[in-house]
Amino acid sequence: MTKQQLFEQITQKNSYLCVGLDTDIKKIPSHLLKEKDPIFEFNRQIIDATAKFAVAYKPNIAFYEALGAKGWESLQRTIEYIPKECFTIADAKRGDIGNTSGLYARTFFDKSSSGLEFDSVTVAPYMGSDSVMPFLEFEGKWVILLALTSNAGGDDFQNLQVHSPQSSVHSLQQPITNNQYPVKSLYEQVILTSQKWADTERMMYVIGATKADKLLKIRELAPEHFLLVPGVGAQGGSLEEVSKYGMNKQCGLLVNSSRAIIYASSGEDFAQVAAKEAKKVQQEMEKYMEIYL
Amino acid sequence: MTKQQLFEQITQKNSYLCVGLDTDIKKIPSHLLKEKDPIFEFNRQIIDATAKFAVAYKPNIAFYEALGAKGWESLQRTIEYIPKECFTIADAKRGDIGNTSGLYARTFFDKSSSGLEFDSVTVAPYMGSDSVMPFLEFEGKWVILLALTSNAGGDDFQNLQVHSPQSSVHSLQQPITNNQYPVKSLYEQVILTSQKWADTERMMYVIGATKADKLLKIRELAPEHFLLVPGVGAQGGSLEEVSKYGMNKQCGLLVNSSRAIIYASSGEDFAQVAAKEAKKVQQEMEKYMEIYL
Repeated sequence: MTKQQLFEQITQKNSYLCVGLDTDIKKIPSHLLKEKDPIFEFNRQIIDATAKFAVAYKPNIAFYEALGAKGWESLQRTIEYIPKECFTIADAKRGDIGNTSGLYARTFFDKSSSGLEFDSVTVAPYMGSDSVMPFLEFEGKWVILLALTSNAGGDDFQNLQVHSPQSSVHSLQQPITNNQYPVKSLYEQVILTSQKWADTERMMYVIGATKADKLLKIRELAPEHFLLVPGVGAQGGSLEEVSKYGMNKQCGLLVNSSRAIIYASSGEDFAQVAAKEAKKVQQEMEKYMEIYL
Repeated sequence: MTKQQLFEQITQKNSYLCVGLDTDIKKIPSHLLKEKDPIFEFNRQIIDATAKFAVAYKPNIAFYEALGAKGWESLQRTIEYIPKECFTIADAKRGDIGNTSGLYARTFFDKSSSGLEFDSVTVAPYMGSDSVMPFLEFEGKWVILLALTSNAGGDDFQNLQVHSPQSSVHSLQQPITNNQYPVKSLYEQVILTSQKWADTERMMYVIGATKADKLLKIRELAPEHFLLVPGVGAQGGSLEEVSKYGMNKQCGLLVNSSRAIIYASSGEDFAQVAAKEAKKVQQEMEKYMEIYL
């Protein structure tokens, strides 16, 4: 899917909602357990109920592979079921040396190999350029690179101050240390360095920020990129702040909600209630698109 | 497996060889393709041929998941087949927010969930403490944390100079910057910070270093840890340098070789030739153990 196609879908649906399919066999309504593939059956009903309000679906791969081979089968059925106009994200946080990342790319992009074909995959940056490039060899597919995550442990490394090897964005006001290297946070350096690997048509960033100051800084570094923002909804981030400070001219946001939608009810009405919750988020988004787009 | 049990196996076999099962359907001898599960059949014969000379096996998970559900079945058969005295490593480079890492931990440690049970899993550090801790909740299981990788892109971030939030190892000679924070490389900070998460009985590091200067520095930071060293063999690292500068009193090294052993021959004699190559490495290791242990 191209950036333009994604934006068109966003304007058609007046939504930039991504529904996270963190489907846990221990959490789905018990009446589904009698189905042949309860995980898929849950996802199927969630997708049917929310596709009007969502532009993207993000299966969290851990939930599927924790069930072994049969989890992968549920995942395959799910990805085949998602309507073609929706953007699909394999939330896998992969990344390894070149030939191994090439195989991870096959896993999520090459249906003839794995049975799966997503539009994008989340990738961890720690191993650098050649761990990311193999994903970009699949034409039209996207890398969504971890930059700033919302978990408490994200602080351990992502916010460390690093000496940038070169200042590629001179417009930023950088404190200069005694060795003349500008200093920035590691996550900012990840955003700067990775912009050399692909343009805004092929790369997005995971940004777990809901605070104005960080979003403003990130938009200075990456004004045109789409940002995938988790942590709104059950995790309590503010959709208004994200929209106000993160939206750009092509929206540039995919805001994910998982538990707050898919587990809104644990009864037989789970899909109806999920639709209601998704609609509520979509309507809020429609309002912000009128103001900030 | 405990550290002591691992060390005992090392002294019994006079080896610290880990055989990497990077089993690629496109590279295995063609006569195996008629088997019901060619990937498992290849692994079975490699394991039979090399178990005398190797103390650990490391399936590279990408190679299996690239084949979808049936790849996971091959992986399950493989892990069940590996002799119980051998240390097993799921080379998966996982890492996500807490509840998701918990599911990745189930994938590789909880047989009742996924059908798989490894002794250890490789984990990416970028998301910090709470992305790593869920793996440590499985008693007796190990985290092997990415610290320094041998690929060219490893330089993009791992070698950046960072301001350490606190100096936890005062013995190191650190340059002091004008803001009084000591400066070190990101990978060194990863090693220092992560030592608060688990002791040497539960955590190892991936160290793709074969150069004396880096190994000496790493041993200063982590004198007692086991290090998993890839990149010796086909990738050309020197086993002698690694052994000389990396070995500690309990050996402290698992040196991996994948392609140079498992693809040493592409003919029907692949297992015999793999055994010969593994034996050659084991004999070199025996020599270094006599000198440096």
